[in-house]
Amino acid sequence: MAESFWRTAISKVEPNKILVHGYDLTGLVGKYTYADLTYLLWRGELPTSDESSMMDTLLTVCLEHSLNSPSVDATVFVASSGVPLQTAVSAGVSAMGDWHGGAVEDAAKLLQEGIKRLRDKNLSPEKVADEILRSHQESHKRIPGYGHPTHTNDPRTKRLLEIAKETHFHSDHVHLALAIEALTKKFYGKPLILNVDGCIAAVMSDMGFDWRLGKGFFIVSRTPGLVAHAYEQMYFDKPYKAAAWEQITYTGRAERKIPDRT
Amino acid sequence: MAESFWRTAISKVEPNKILVHGYDLTGLVGKYTYADLTYLLWRGELPTSDESSMMDTLLTVCLEHSLNSPSVDATVFVASSGVPLQTAVSAGVSAMGDWHGGAVEDAAKLLQEGIKRLRDKNLSPEKVADEILRSHQESHKRIPGYGHPTHTNDPRTKRLLEIAKETHFHSDHVHLALAIEALTKKFYGKPLILNVDGCIAAVMSDMGFDWRLGKGFFIVSRTPGLVAHAYEQMYFDKPYKAAAWEQITYTGRAERKIPDRT
Amino acid sequence: MAESFWRTAISKVEPNKILVHGYDLTGLVGKYTYADLTYLLWRGELPTSDESSMMDTLLTVCLEHSLNSPSVDATVFVASSGVPLQTAVSAGVSAMGDWHGGAVEDAAKLLQEGIKRLRDKNLSPEKVADEILRSHQESHKRIPGYGHPTHTNDPRTKRLLEIAKETHFHSDHVHLALAIEALTKKFYGKPLILNVDGCIAAVMSDMGFDWRLGKGFFIVSRTPGLVAHAYEQMYFDKPYKAAAWEQITYTGRAERKIPDRT
Amino acid sequence: MAESFWRTAISKVEPNKILVHGYDLTGLVGKYTYADLTYLLWRGELPTSDESSMMDTLLTVCLEHSLNSPSVDATVFVASSGVPLQTAVSAGVSAMGDWHGGAVEDAAKLLQEGIKRLRDKNLSPEKVADEILRSHQESHKRIPGYGHPTHTNDPRTKRLLEIAKETHFHSDHVHLALAIEALTKKFYGKPLILNVDGCIAAVMSDMGFDWRLGKGFFIVSRTPGLVAHAYEQMYFDKPYKAAAWEQITYTGRAERKIPDRT
Repeated sequence: MAESFWRTAISKVEPNKILVHGYDLTGLVGKYTYADLTYLLWRGELPTSDESSMMDTLLTVCLEHSLNSPSVDATVFVASSGVPLQTAVSAGVSAMGDWHGGAVEDAAKLLQEGIKRLRDKNLSPEKVADEILRSHQESHKRIPGYGHPTHTNDPRTKRLLEIAKETHFHSDHVHLALAIEALTKKFYGKPLILNVDGCIAAVMSDMGFDWRLGKGFFIVSRTPGLVAHAYEQMYFDKPYKAAAWEQITYTGRAERKIPDRT
Repeated sequence: MAESFWRTAISKVEPNKILVHGYDLTGLVGKYTYADLTYLLWRGELPTSDESSMMDTLLTVCLEHSLNSPSVDATVFVASSGVPLQTAVSAGVSAMGDWHGGAVEDAAKLLQEGIKRLRDKNLSPEKVADEILRSHQESHKRIPGYGHPTHTNDPRTKRLLEIAKETHFHSDHVHLALAIEALTKKFYGKPLILNVDGCIAAVMSDMGFDWRLGKGFFIVSRTPGLVAHAYEQMYFDKPYKAAAWEQITYTGRAERKIPDRT
Repeated sequence: MAESFWRTAISKVEPNKILVHGYDLTGLVGKYTYADLTYLLWRGELPTSDESSMMDTLLTVCLEHSLNSPSVDATVFVASSGVPLQTAVSAGVSAMGDWHGGAVEDAAKLLQEGIKRLRDKNLSPEKVADEILRSHQESHKRIPGYGHPTHTNDPRTKRLLEIAKETHFHSDHVHLALAIEALTKKFYGKPLILNVDGCIAAVMSDMGFDWRLGKGFFIVSRTPGLVAHAYEQMYFDKPYKAAAWEQITYTGRAERKIPDRT
Repeated sequence: MAESFWRTAISKVEPNKILVHGYDLTGLVGKYTYADLTYLLWRGELPTSDESSMMDTLLTVCLEHSLNSPSVDATVFVASSGVPLQTAVSAGVSAMGDWHGGAVEDAAKLLQEGIKRLRDKNLSPEKVADEILRSHQESHKRIPGYGHPTHTNDPRTKRLLEIAKETHFHSDHVHLALAIEALTKKFYGKPLILNVDGCIAAVMSDMGFDWRLGKGFFIVSRTPGLVAHAYEQMYFDKPYKAAAWEQITYTGRAERKIPDRT
């Protein structure tokens, strides 16, 4: 059979009916929450009660970080320039790169590969944590999901771990993440805290999520805030936000004469 | 006092503490849902129980529409070209324009202005509906929020109205929206259904939301699906999705000789 | 005949051959410049010698404006967050809205409609200029293409007008643009200069361009600079650029107790 | 001295004056072309006559590839959804990822590292080419810049090499690129052509460009075409382009009953 150009396993639309992974969308509404349906879209199944609570927590725990984040800053500059709301939000989403939310994906990959090794070779979490930190140190790579420029003791991590315990997702990946945290002082001279990105990574891994969906949690989590900041900038602030010329330090060549064309 | 370059009323970050409209984020997590916190971000207050249910419904009722939407199609092309997940999602969000989700904003504006006239001049919903349809017909403008290319009887609208009744947001704006629907046959010769965009617009207006947040509902609603489609394209399909040259109909000039430069 | 889903008059691809508006792309390269081929893409014809010079000027005169522009600022924040080069450039392009480059489109529309009225009703430029300023003043709308937050005497406008004279595109639309400038003092109490956006709008109109391509000039013009700024931020600056929490003025609600769910 | 938050070496703005790498922008206009000024923005110096010709060639040789490219396809879907021109162009730029234009960057990196090894160890191009192909084969990685899904004998490559000879940029990196091409048959069983991305990579390397600017050539090159396609879709085609529901193959779960919440 010829392959179809348009093909998806996620959902089906026909007149007056929309199926999401086999479930009628209209029947789900009012019965399952936004977090549940996000779970369904990403996993193909509806969540259990514990999964539902944990999913909602993962999507709210890093909800908002004010203008102290590149994505919100990108959004307000774009929002100030006379564009529709979604354009400003889109720019913010595009900023959720390796250094901004990307640690969820990177840390989840690290932890999932670590737990695979732990299970395949019957190792302790401490042993795997030591290997991970050692290899990062040797290759001069930052360990994703640890340390924070603003928070010395990230309160979001603590809350996330409490709910993970209540919902029974405080398991192997979380243990490994904490084993790494405990060893950071040995490797870096000072302790590096497990930050909210690293903790989301550990919990989503204990829930069975593919690490490649890691950024999805951050994107969905921050989108309502991007809408709020775009709205505030568009309707309650002045247009055309830009660094004033007097604020800008020019570090380039001094003025010079334009040569004739050769 | 000099105005600050960086200024917001939405949230405050300081070491180990994040406030959202005055509430400690960590304290909200596990107690209030994603829909609740979206409400908080956009309104500045936490929702009541009815508002909470209605908000969740507004954010799930148009969750997903498969590849039958420009935003998902844009996402899959971008996702196929070797980019990070968030870049593909960002392109999808940017497509939520006037003809794709924008009807929520446009219809909410129309209904809010209509209800203002109704109250100011003590008019009936039928009278305002008639005025609205007449002015759109005279200026050859489409009425936003009515009719659908695929659904002849949008099941999402029916479900939304049920929950609006249960939560007591089936009020003036919804009545006006239905009064317009009832009159479409008179103006257009055939009935135009109130579609899900128009119905979201009516209910969010009865909840007291500013029409300028209309696109926000659509953006947040569709973002988990954009993540799912980007993920599917990136990891379960072939790279470099593009129209094949044989599929493309060229309607331009036949081949011609390149002239010498004048 | 059934309409094709994929259809374009711009170019044709087949194995080992690419036609652009009927011309073989490979034959054009080395004979016609980037500005010429942009002209071809947008007009469907190759430019004359005068059109070629003028086109290049329109694409270079507002080349770069440092960090004193929302698009560059959006680009550097996105570039700092660990994304590929094109993602940062894309965010910058998305910021070229109504208040940032959009004046080219708006001013070109205004001038083209003005010249149509002038010709239809045999009016003087001064009369049309007066009508335009009057109607903007009455509806409290800003006149696009006039005034500049940084430049009191935009040197780019002067240079553009010189080249427009040399290439014979200093015609009706430019005259109208200058007639408006001359009258701004009468309407606003102080003179508003014709800025570079307004001047590009006038000259592109005298070249016969559709006003709806106005933003195209600005986009193409600024893209090499966005690449340069993204490159500088990515490889010669620190990652994760964001407003520091100490810099941010929070204007929202003071901390308050989280209520129990109702 | 405290570091400045806003800092750049590229350009300086002050009232009525703009410097680009030390040159007055207004003085450059009409004397240097768009390609020249792009060279200046990216290198910090004005080009010689040969560099100017070569630069223009690099920016035009892959100008346009119709709807047979993910970036143009993304642009038309976004353009169809009721957004401003720049939003649709922005989505197209965001699609210029690793599999779509990214080969310029990857191939330039490969060639620059190869020439470094060649010079450091005094190797022949053939030896380095053999090493490169061998290592790619062993790690099952595609060699960037070779082969093309549509063109069996890319005419753009031939034209580019002619102009590189004329302008004296047919040097070490081009020789290495051709040495790799000559050996592809030995490694892959069938010859893989040097495609236009690989050839741009080789020539830009012989001009002394940093490989990390590779995507910049592709971005600037394709932007005028994205503008043209967005304009065509917005004003000469129907709104809301999306796959029709009948065209979509749903490969997911069959309809199933919605379970009660656990």
